Amino acid sequence: MIVAVFRKARALPFAAVIFLFVLSVSAFASDEEALIRKASQILGPLPASMPSAENPITPEKVRLGKLLFYEPRISIDGTVSCSKCHPLALYAADGLRKSVGHDCVENPRNDPTVFNAASQISEHWTGNRTSVEDQAKQAVTGPPAYGMPSYESAEKILRSYREYRDLFKAAFPSDREPVTIDNFAKAIGAFERTLVTPAPFDSYLKGEKAAMTEQQKRGLSAFMDQGCAGCHSSPFVGGQMYRKFGLFEPYRKYTKSEKVDDGRFAVTKKEADRYVFKTPVLRNVAMTPPYFHDGSVDGLSDAVWIMGKIQLGKDLPKEQVEDIVAFLRALTGKIPEEVMIVPVLPSPE
Amino acid sequence: MIVAVFRKARALPFAAVIFLFVLSVSAFASDEEALIRKASQILGPLPASMPSAENPITPEKVRLGKLLFYEPRISIDGTVSCSKCHPLALYAADGLRKSVGHDCVENPRNDPTVFNAASQISEHWTGNRTSVEDQAKQAVTGPPAYGMPSYESAEKILRSYREYRDLFKAAFPSDREPVTIDNFAKAIGAFERTLVTPAPFDSYLKGEKAAMTEQQKRGLSAFMDQGCAGCHSSPFVGGQMYRKFGLFEPYRKYTKSEKVDDGRFAVTKKEADRYVFKTPVLRNVAMTPPYFHDGSVDGLSDAVWIMGKIQLGKDLPKEQVEDIVAFLRALTGKIPEEVMIVPVLPSPE
Repeated sequence: MIVAVFRKARALPFAAVIFLFVLSVSAFASDEEALIRKASQILGPLPASMPSAENPITPEKVRLGKLLFYEPRISIDGTVSCSKCHPLALYAADGLRKSVGHDCVENPRNDPTVFNAASQISEHWTGNRTSVEDQAKQAVTGPPAYGMPSYESAEKILRSYREYRDLFKAAFPSDREPVTIDNFAKAIGAFERTLVTPAPFDSYLKGEKAAMTEQQKRGLSAFMDQGCAGCHSSPFVGGQMYRKFGLFEPYRKYTKSEKVDDGRFAVTKKEADRYVFKTPVLRNVAMTPPYFHDGSVDGLSDAVWIMGKIQLGKDLPKEQVEDIVAFLRALTGKIPEEVMIVPVLPSPE
Repeated sequence: MIVAVFRKARALPFAAVIFLFVLSVSAFASDEEALIRKASQILGPLPASMPSAENPITPEKVRLGKLLFYEPRISIDGTVSCSKCHPLALYAADGLRKSVGHDCVENPRNDPTVFNAASQISEHWTGNRTSVEDQAKQAVTGPPAYGMPSYESAEKILRSYREYRDLFKAAFPSDREPVTIDNFAKAIGAFERTLVTPAPFDSYLKGEKAAMTEQQKRGLSAFMDQGCAGCHSSPFVGGQMYRKFGLFEPYRKYTKSEKVDDGRFAVTKKEADRYVFKTPVLRNVAMTPPYFHDGSVDGLSDAVWIMGKIQLGKDLPKEQVEDIVAFLRALTGKIPEEVMIVPVLPSPE
């Protein structure tokens, strides 16, 4: 269009050329503005943290929670801590098809990252944990997690460290007995509620147009226009609803899935919840293969194409799949430096 | 003595009082100087790193080695990296009686910290690894470690990451094929050779007399006078020789040991090496329970008393045991901040 304008330039008065040029640039600009506006409505930039009315974030809780995140000595075999299945070096996921808990007990499903995870409608693929606090608490006695015989047995161990007694007291000053599993869960929850990883996509939404490539912008556009964002919505690009996995075709047709997973049916026992899972958060998805609830797909391009087939009933062209993957890479965030510093755990007296 | 001097002060000319006072203070000072001199000869302050002629430390190797230290994707079940058994949050030991490798295979012995470990005569309790590089290399195919079927299978995985290809090339620029297990071992070795943790004891040897408490100084003195330092020598306070464990009495008399361990006999097949182990490094010993080759003792005081009984034939009085434990706490070092920052591992393309 610009070329055409310039071809005719000789025959036009100078003022008209300028007018048409400005008009066409504005059209591009307003296309991009429209994309940003739409993406801001459907998705939106990450907040600075993921607060909770029930568990206000305080520096004391976060400090304690970060220590507890690494604490394996309250697991039945001494090997399990949050960081076992959420190692920060792998973007707080573990790279396995299914995580392993104490004594190599396999978890039923693939491990999501704990980054940007605390503002979902629930936790776990089937939503059987109401919050990150609930998840942390139940992990302590969970058979494929810490595997402790009781909350009391874990509390007893925590209380044996003077440093923990002091830190719990500082984090929960009004509690008569601060060292409890509920407070353990609150401290870890508070820490996890700070784990947001702003990405190029957020910079883009905030007006930094060079933060995403043209391919990533096409991918963002396709992600919304093709219907992906219908379920993967909110600043977390997911985590806000439950959906049947395999709307158009069974997922096992395209994956390496070994067995049928009833999904949320196991939680609600409602027939309508069979094969239903929580739509996962797609923040940092490029850093956390393998994919799907059973980790049955290794490649992100494959995962995107399969989602098109089974959830949208569309055979997305290869080029568009790559555009969407490029956009998903723009969701790879920067991990705050402070988060990557490992704390030293309390030592015995 | 000083009191006696002052009682007589009235009867003495002033100059004589001053003379006697200075004399007694000098006696204390020279006692302390003698302690520092002796400790500097037998033990000595930590060096800045633990270099090796065969594997010079370079920033490029250290950078790569630190990533590889956290890399679980080259283990047969995807869960084992150096950091699994050497988590920095627990001073690079794992707190277990015996470490567990891939698929929960139990290691034959307790896990030492990798801090200050690279200048020993050998690695592992029985000395069956010649160096930290040899340890890292053999861990890849070791049945209770990474459990890979071959070095090639691990190399193939590492080569699949562009970032690793670049980092190996930068660290080993003259190699035609830089991504090899030998270079993996050299990079991890170079990283580990930087892991020194200077402690209050080092400050004390360098003249900062307030760096250790009076109890710690008594403990240091006892540690040398009672004979502990006869085997736990060098700046690493151990790691320089092999010794029979249970010279005066069998160790199992006092520990929770479950079975007989032939020790270095398994390596050399020499009868003289039965029950012989490498004297462990005692740097950071207070942070790395449980104790002994089989992790059969939980408390540091117990461990010290047992060592007195079975290695020195002495029933060390409780007070002296506590003095020695206090000294051992002065070996708890400061971990360099840079070391505690977890790196993000390469992501798939």
